[in-house]
Amino acid sequence: VPKFPLVSLTTDFGFLDAYVGVMKGVILGIAPQARIVDISHDVEPQNLAQAAFLLQTAYRYFPAVTIHVGVVDPGVGTARRAIAVQASHGTFVGPDNGIFCAALADQGAIDRETGALLSGRAVALADERYWLQPVSRTFHGRDIFAPVAAHLARGADLASFGPAIATLETGVANPVRSEGGKLYGSIVHIDRFGNAISNLDPQLLGAAPVLEVAGLTIHGLAPNYQQGGIVALVGSSGLIEIAEANASAARTLGLGVGDPIVAKMEP
Amino acid sequence: VPKFPLVSLTTDFGFLDAYVGVMKGVILGIAPQARIVDISHDVEPQNLAQAAFLLQTAYRYFPAVTIHVGVVDPGVGTARRAIAVQASHGTFVGPDNGIFCAALADQGAIDRETGALLSGRAVALADERYWLQPVSRTFHGRDIFAPVAAHLARGADLASFGPAIATLETGVANPVRSEGGKLYGSIVHIDRFGNAISNLDPQLLGAAPVLEVAGLTIHGLAPNYQQGGIVALVGSSGLIEIAEANASAARTLGLGVGDPIVAKMEP
Amino acid sequence: VPKFPLVSLTTDFGFLDAYVGVMKGVILGIAPQARIVDISHDVEPQNLAQAAFLLQTAYRYFPAVTIHVGVVDPGVGTARRAIAVQASHGTFVGPDNGIFCAALADQGAIDRETGALLSGRAVALADERYWLQPVSRTFHGRDIFAPVAAHLARGADLASFGPAIATLETGVANPVRSEGGKLYGSIVHIDRFGNAISNLDPQLLGAAPVLEVAGLTIHGLAPNYQQGGIVALVGSSGLIEIAEANASAARTLGLGVGDPIVAKMEP
Repeated sequence: VPKFPLVSLTTDFGFLDAYVGVMKGVILGIAPQARIVDISHDVEPQNLAQAAFLLQTAYRYFPAVTIHVGVVDPGVGTARRAIAVQASHGTFVGPDNGIFCAALADQGAIDRETGALLSGRAVALADERYWLQPVSRTFHGRDIFAPVAAHLARGADLASFGPAIATLETGVANPVRSEGGKLYGSIVHIDRFGNAISNLDPQLLGAAPVLEVAGLTIHGLAPNYQQGGIVALVGSSGLIEIAEANASAARTLGLGVGDPIVAKMEP
Repeated sequence: VPKFPLVSLTTDFGFLDAYVGVMKGVILGIAPQARIVDISHDVEPQNLAQAAFLLQTAYRYFPAVTIHVGVVDPGVGTARRAIAVQASHGTFVGPDNGIFCAALADQGAIDRETGALLSGRAVALADERYWLQPVSRTFHGRDIFAPVAAHLARGADLASFGPAIATLETGVANPVRSEGGKLYGSIVHIDRFGNAISNLDPQLLGAAPVLEVAGLTIHGLAPNYQQGGIVALVGSSGLIEIAEANASAARTLGLGVGDPIVAKMEP
Repeated sequence: VPKFPLVSLTTDFGFLDAYVGVMKGVILGIAPQARIVDISHDVEPQNLAQAAFLLQTAYRYFPAVTIHVGVVDPGVGTARRAIAVQASHGTFVGPDNGIFCAALADQGAIDRETGALLSGRAVALADERYWLQPVSRTFHGRDIFAPVAAHLARGADLASFGPAIATLETGVANPVRSEGGKLYGSIVHIDRFGNAISNLDPQLLGAAPVLEVAGLTIHGLAPNYQQGGIVALVGSSGLIEIAEANASAARTLGLGVGDPIVAKMEP
C-alpha cells in the first residue's frame, strides 16, 4: 500500500452538483491519506465511448498502483454488474458496461472483442459490507464505487469484494474496421480547442496516409499545429487527430463525436 | 486534530477566475497538511437557496470533523456577520446569511424557523489576528473565511475567533407549507441531467403520493430512472425529484429553481 | 524541501479533456507527497494576457515555496524556449512567452519592459533526463513542465534542469501608458460576475479619479458593490474594476478583454 494511494475519478456528473464532492468526502472518510485526481467530470451525460476514450488516454500517465473510478452509468439501479479489475497498470472500479474496456484492452488485460480477461484479476462487487448503507437506486458512485475504491486504497485485497469473473461487458467499443485497403474509424472526442480526435492508430497507417473526413481529403501528417489550415497529425493521445491552427477544426468542418474518418493505407 | 484535516469549499466563484485557487493557497499556507475538497463552485451567482441545498445534501457524507467553508455572499463589505458554527456533524465557516441553515437544521443544531442554536457552538468572527491583512471589501472568502478555516484545521478552538452567538440568520429558507391535506414545496435545484430536485421529504408523503408540478399530475413514485416518461422518485439526496429517462425533465417541463410542487398527502 | 510541496496549475486546457488530470498523474507519480492546486484551467484558448493576469493576482497568496506551472502555449512544438524561474515569491515553470512576466515584474524579479532578470535565477529547460519520453509535439505540459515541476517539488536544484538565462521574453504585456495627464489602460479580465478588471493601479490615481470606459464617465471610487448602478472600485485583485451590483457590468456596457479604460490623474 503506497503512503499516499492515488484515486482518479472520471464521471459525467459535472461540477454544477455536489455529486463529485460527495464521492470525495466518502473516499477521504474511509481512506484519509488517499490523493484524489479528477480526470474529467464533463463527459457528455451517458456517453460511454467518450469516457472510455478519456480513461484510455489518461491511465498510462498515472502510477500503476492508481485506482481509477469511472462512473458513466445509464444502467444504475438495474441489473448491470458493478466490478473492480486489477490490471498491470491500474485498478479500475465502476459499472460493467464497457467504460474500462479501451484502457484494459490497450494494456492487454482483456480481449477487445469478447471482453475475456487475459491477465490480472476481476471481481463482481457483491460484499455489501464495503458499501454505504442504505444503497440508493440512483447514485452507486457514492454508495458503492467510492467506498470500494477507498477500501482498495487502504489495502483491502480485490478478492474481498466479491466473486471472480472471467469476462467483462465490452459495451460500446469503437473498433476500427479494415476493408479494401482502407481503415474505417470514427471521431471519439472533440477537445477544448476543437481538435477532433479519432480512433485511428498512426502505427497502422505508414508515414504519409491519405485521410478522408467531413468531405475533405488530407494528404500526409503535419509535424505540429502551426502550418496553417486543416491538418492531420499525431496528437498527444497517440492517435490521429484533425486540427486547425488557432481555430476549431471541429467547428470549421462541422465534426462531432461518432463521425466517420477513413484512412487509405499505404501499400 | 486529524492528521489530514478536511476542508470543503462551496462558492459561487466558478473556475473562470483565480478566486478558488487563491483560497486554497491561503489555506495550505497556514495548514499545509489540510485536504481540500470542492463541493461546488458553480452555484448560480448569489443564489443562497441553491448553496444551502448543496451543503445540506453533501455534509453528511463527509467525516464529522470536516470544516465546511461556504461563500455565497451578496452582503460582502456590508454589516452582515461572519460566523463559524461547530455542530455534531461538521464545522461551518462563512457569512451569516442562511447558507448553512438547511445543513444545521437537518442535524438538529438550529431551529429552522428562528435560527436559534439548539446544540453545538457558534461564534461571530471578530478576532482580526486570524485574518489576512488588509481585509478587502469584496473578497472575505480569501481574507477571512479561508484563514479561519485553516486555523480551525490546525486545531484552534472555536472560541478563539470571536464571541459566542445564540441565533443565526435563517435568510432564505425553503420551508414546506402544509395546508388542507396538501404539502406545498418548491424546486431547489436542477442537476446536470435536468432532474428537478424538490424540498419535499418522501417520509411525509407515504408510499403512493400524488404530485402536481408544472401542470402535470404524477401518481406514485418510480423505483428508478428507467421506466420511461416523466417520473417522480426519491433521488440520491433523499428528497423527491422529477426525472425523465435519458432526457432533461427540467427542459421538458420548463422547470426552474423556485417553481412550486404540490403533494397530496395520503390519508 | 517542504513536507507537502505545493504545485499550482494555470492552463487553457479546460476540464472537458483529460489533459489536466494527466498532468496531475505525472506529477504525483514523481512526487507523491506534492499538493496540487488549480488556479484556473478556463483561460481562453491561447489568451496569454489573461493567464498572466490570473497568475499575477494569485501567486502572492500562495506560500513563497510554491511551484507555479503555467501552460498557455500557442508556440508548442516550435522553437520557443521552456523555462523555470525561481523568484523570491514562487518558482515558475512553463513556456518562455510572457505568461509569468506580470507575476515576476510585480515582485521585482524582472524588468517589465526588457524582461531582464533582476533577482532570483532562471534556466532554459534542456536536460531531457527530467522529461517524459518520448516528448510529444503538442503537449509539453505533460511531457516537460509537469515532470520538471515534480522534480523541483522533490528538491532538485534549479541548475539541474538547464543553462542559466538572463532575459525572458516579455511577450504580451499590458503596459499602462501615461500621456497628457491621463493613464491609458485596458480591461485584462472579465470575472464570473461580469466585473471588468483593468490593469490600472489605484495607487497611481489618487482618491477620486475620473474614469472613462465604454463611453461612460465614472467619478470616484465606490466602497463596495452595493451602491447601485455601474461603479468603479478597487477589486480584490488590488486593481481598478468596473462593477454593477447584482448584475454584469461587462454585459451592461458590452465590455470585453482588451477594451480601453482611461483615467484622468488628479493634479
